[in-house]
Amino acid sequence: MAQETFLDPTELDIEAHRAQVLEQLRALARTDRPGLGYDPAHGGGGDVGGSLTSFEMLGFGDLSLMVKAGVQWGLFGGAVQLLGTERHHREYLRRITSGELLGCFAMTEHGHGSDVQHLRTTATFTDGGFVIDTPDESAVKEYIGNAARDGELAVVFAQLITGGESRGVHAFLVPIRVGGEPAPGVTITDCGRKAGLNGVDNGRLAFDGVRVGRAALLNRFADVAEDGTYSSPIESDNRRFFTMLGTLIRGRISVAGSAVNATKRALAVAVRYGERRRQFFTPDGDEVVLLDYRAHQRKLLPAIAKTYALHFAQERLVSTVHDLGTEPAEHDQRELESRAAGIKAVATWHATRTIQTAREACGGAGYLAENLLPALKADTDVFTTFEGDNTVLLQLVAKGLLTGYRDYFADLSTLATVRFAAEQLVETLLERTSARKVLDRLAGAADDEVLFDREWHLRLFEDREEHVLDGVARRLRKAAESGDAFAAFNDAQDHVLRTGRVHVDRLVLEAFAAAVDRCEDSAAAALLGRLCDLYALSDIEADRAWFLEHGRLTSGRAKAVTAAVNTLCAELRPYARVLVDGFAVPEQFLRAPMLES
Amino acid sequence: MAQETFLDPTELDIEAHRAQVLEQLRALARTDRPGLGYDPAHGGGGDVGGSLTSFEMLGFGDLSLMVKAGVQWGLFGGAVQLLGTERHHREYLRRITSGELLGCFAMTEHGHGSDVQHLRTTATFTDGGFVIDTPDESAVKEYIGNAARDGELAVVFAQLITGGESRGVHAFLVPIRVGGEPAPGVTITDCGRKAGLNGVDNGRLAFDGVRVGRAALLNRFADVAEDGTYSSPIESDNRRFFTMLGTLIRGRISVAGSAVNATKRALAVAVRYGERRRQFFTPDGDEVVLLDYRAHQRKLLPAIAKTYALHFAQERLVSTVHDLGTEPAEHDQRELESRAAGIKAVATWHATRTIQTAREACGGAGYLAENLLPALKADTDVFTTFEGDNTVLLQLVAKGLLTGYRDYFADLSTLATVRFAAEQLVETLLERTSARKVLDRLAGAADDEVLFDREWHLRLFEDREEHVLDGVARRLRKAAESGDAFAAFNDAQDHVLRTGRVHVDRLVLEAFAAAVDRCEDSAAAALLGRLCDLYALSDIEADRAWFLEHGRLTSGRAKAVTAAVNTLCAELRPYARVLVDGFAVPEQFLRAPMLES
Repeated sequence: MAQETFLDPTELDIEAHRAQVLEQLRALARTDRPGLGYDPAHGGGGDVGGSLTSFEMLGFGDLSLMVKAGVQWGLFGGAVQLLGTERHHREYLRRITSGELLGCFAMTEHGHGSDVQHLRTTATFTDGGFVIDTPDESAVKEYIGNAARDGELAVVFAQLITGGESRGVHAFLVPIRVGGEPAPGVTITDCGRKAGLNGVDNGRLAFDGVRVGRAALLNRFADVAEDGTYSSPIESDNRRFFTMLGTLIRGRISVAGSAVNATKRALAVAVRYGERRRQFFTPDGDEVVLLDYRAHQRKLLPAIAKTYALHFAQERLVSTVHDLGTEPAEHDQRELESRAAGIKAVATWHATRTIQTAREACGGAGYLAENLLPALKADTDVFTTFEGDNTVLLQLVAKGLLTGYRDYFADLSTLATVRFAAEQLVETLLERTSARKVLDRLAGAADDEVLFDREWHLRLFEDREEHVLDGVARRLRKAAESGDAFAAFNDAQDHVLRTGRVHVDRLVLEAFAAAVDRCEDSAAAALLGRLCDLYALSDIEADRAWFLEHGRLTSGRAKAVTAAVNTLCAELRPYARVLVDGFAVPEQFLRAPMLES
Repeated sequence: MAQETFLDPTELDIEAHRAQVLEQLRALARTDRPGLGYDPAHGGGGDVGGSLTSFEMLGFGDLSLMVKAGVQWGLFGGAVQLLGTERHHREYLRRITSGELLGCFAMTEHGHGSDVQHLRTTATFTDGGFVIDTPDESAVKEYIGNAARDGELAVVFAQLITGGESRGVHAFLVPIRVGGEPAPGVTITDCGRKAGLNGVDNGRLAFDGVRVGRAALLNRFADVAEDGTYSSPIESDNRRFFTMLGTLIRGRISVAGSAVNATKRALAVAVRYGERRRQFFTPDGDEVVLLDYRAHQRKLLPAIAKTYALHFAQERLVSTVHDLGTEPAEHDQRELESRAAGIKAVATWHATRTIQTAREACGGAGYLAENLLPALKADTDVFTTFEGDNTVLLQLVAKGLLTGYRDYFADLSTLATVRFAAEQLVETLLERTSARKVLDRLAGAADDEVLFDREWHLRLFEDREEHVLDGVARRLRKAAESGDAFAAFNDAQDHVLRTGRVHVDRLVLEAFAAAVDRCEDSAAAALLGRLCDLYALSDIEADRAWFLEHGRLTSGRAKAVTAAVNTLCAELRPYARVLVDGFAVPEQFLRAPMLES
């Protein structure tokens, strides 16, 4: 198909944009990509890593297509595949793959987004089937992609009620549109214009006594017999719920990957502009190229370094998901969910900040739609709060650490976390002390021996994580004795979030360092190594208040870190173009008038 | 006129939006606001402060109107008033005020935006008049508001050539559109869709041998006689140029004011949402209001404090401009330009960051156009780079400080600055030492005696500024001896920018402190005082790495600052609503479905 099929629009109205994205989706459906991650028994490719990577690649183009494809094949198809059983796979997967059957993933409600456990839509078992109801305004399904215009079937998350008893949230297949019109009992409204992603038809869904058959329940983890008897291979309601949710982490991984790729695109645009654009003359009468200014280098080069870092962290995550397969050990699965959550949070915040920086670095030209950055900015904005609000996700990462992934930390109950922290932490922490020994050894060395030493970076990140985690555990443990678990948790919330963040920073640095180590081309390895230095030192510089406060850096060494970041910016400046070329953004997505005239 | 006239659109296409904004502009023209700042002799109100305040008020509504009105009455009309003489005032001001004559301010070119001195459009005196030419692509006037659709006359900045000699940049009145069609020799193109502000018709202007009469020169600061003889009351070309530019600072002041008001609106929306929205339950079964979470308070309350701070700084700036009148002493004028530049930079970056935070604080609802934040975000984005790129503006502030406002520091020549720094700085710095004495006295006091002491905040900000300025001056002085002025300046650029920033931070704190002092209602003064504490302590917290590195804070006190910010967030949380109500955003601009259902 023509490459132009995938160009992103700058001048389409909403309806035309939606139509174009649907057409692009259909073009994609004619390739082998959509079914890559599904079971080969139903026409899938059985290649989870390939599937995730192909979603990521959509991050280079119009992000509306990435999101619409993500809804169709990742969330909707993924739920059918991972929460359903043979009968669902047989009946739906081929039609979902081919795009013949378009669907929605109806989880979020008007009143509950992050707190999925308290969704209020109900699915009541009666007369051999389920009746789906929206009890009130707060239970209306909200922001549902594919709902306003194209979806026919929805995976609806609802509280299952059978025998008068509530069994918690389960997923049901519910037809929402028949022959282009809302199905009986289903009310669909359009969310209208959004800040971005206007090629995706987000809508609201309300259900009024909608009957579906017993087979509508996606019954891999729980079933209801003909007589209404409820059964599940997982005894605990909590555990079952989080097992179901856990299967859906691929969405978060795809968002993180797309965010990283959108960031690459913005940086490629900004560097090309920064190498062409000149402003102000030197005393010698030369007009200075923007990227020769230190302030401009400071804006773009550390961002390039962090984007490489996140690229490698993301690559490692995707490999792990791929290798773990569909039935990972529980501890591994918990750890993986945590890692996906953390990288999604850090990568999407990085995207928001960096694309903004890229826009400003291109001045007025960056504000024109034709120069690509406005759409990149508007489209990626929501990434920080959808597929898990970043603040909530970092909290989830911290809880995983605090509980040693030993339980369903995805349950955000503060009481549980405080208790865990109180009971389980001492032993976890005592295992780690090696980092401090290395740091103590290096403390006396000269700046230039230490600042570019990978061992020093790694141990510093590790030691920071240990110290922050230890501190928050102590605080929560002490606070747990105070009686008011919420107040105790809330009082430490910024500390908890910091725990999640420094943990992710450490994982990201490790992934980058590993990528440098395995690079076989020595020139490339040397360049990547310097870039990894810049990532590590920029991170340390940004957080140097903490390092100073906790005696990890002297003020002399802290100032040396800042100086080293400047040195690296100057040293890497000649490679800026080659570094963004290394992102391999397809040229068709870099066509902007400001880069041509 | 109906209040609804001024509602901002969420669903209009570009042409409809432009039409609506023009209609709003015409409605405004029927009030006495547009002419408030002009000379009473030509129908104006002679009230500069009132005029600036009325532009600021437009910052509460659709920012396209603020920008279009700013172009028409601030930039275009302002240039006629301040760069023109009696003959221009008589001929144009009334028609500009009434909106009968719509105009443009054609300064920025494709190749030169920040570096206005090197604009390349030419105005050649010949046969008793001027011929305006665009010599090449890089000289095309770019992003010109009012150009694509409505403007008839433009103030065009061009290199004046008379007698074969170039006289530098001057301003000329050039008709660009006659009877709705481009004037002969004028090519107008449309900049098309932008990230925001789509109600403003930005366009490009190119001139091919366009003849205008001798009276087209706005001749307050320079004139050309019938025989082509050039004369000016200001001898130095450089000085004349910056005197002309200096008269135009009102645009920057208006942008800063609008940015502050747009920020207020975003915060009012986010606080209302944060007080309604609940997510996750406490162990006691209460669903927690978002604003009761520490992380949420941390997102919004320091931003509210800084918005108040900037409000007062802006108010003080507007008063000063008003009081100085049209013929201020040169030093006062330079200092004022610097202050306007600095507050514009800090206020617009604060707007970009805070509106983004507000969007994220409202989750998915904040991403829907109907909930106002997307337009606020998209519209204000360009504020950081138009009317002066913020990075360039902070540099200008620093140069003012380095030269003691003794010359035309708006000239960004690096050579000049390095020389000034080398020659003039020692004396300036020796004058200031009192701050350190107070700080030394307070260094030994207990945290709780110091942290909420306004004297401590003020002296700490002052001392930081002195130290940073002293340091950069030493660096530049040393570097000046090295011979390569550009390299020396560039090497210190981040330090130079920091100098500008900490200077503005000090001015802003002083303005806030003065506002608290003059507040006569004791309850309000107490609340404002705590808010001022929060502003000061948040700023210190964000910059505590510097204070630690330079021995201004011990690590114990730095941690106490962080704890104090948390304490203040909790203490002020019950007043969040009253604080945003205090912004007095008209209720009609806060109507969002997410705040109603």
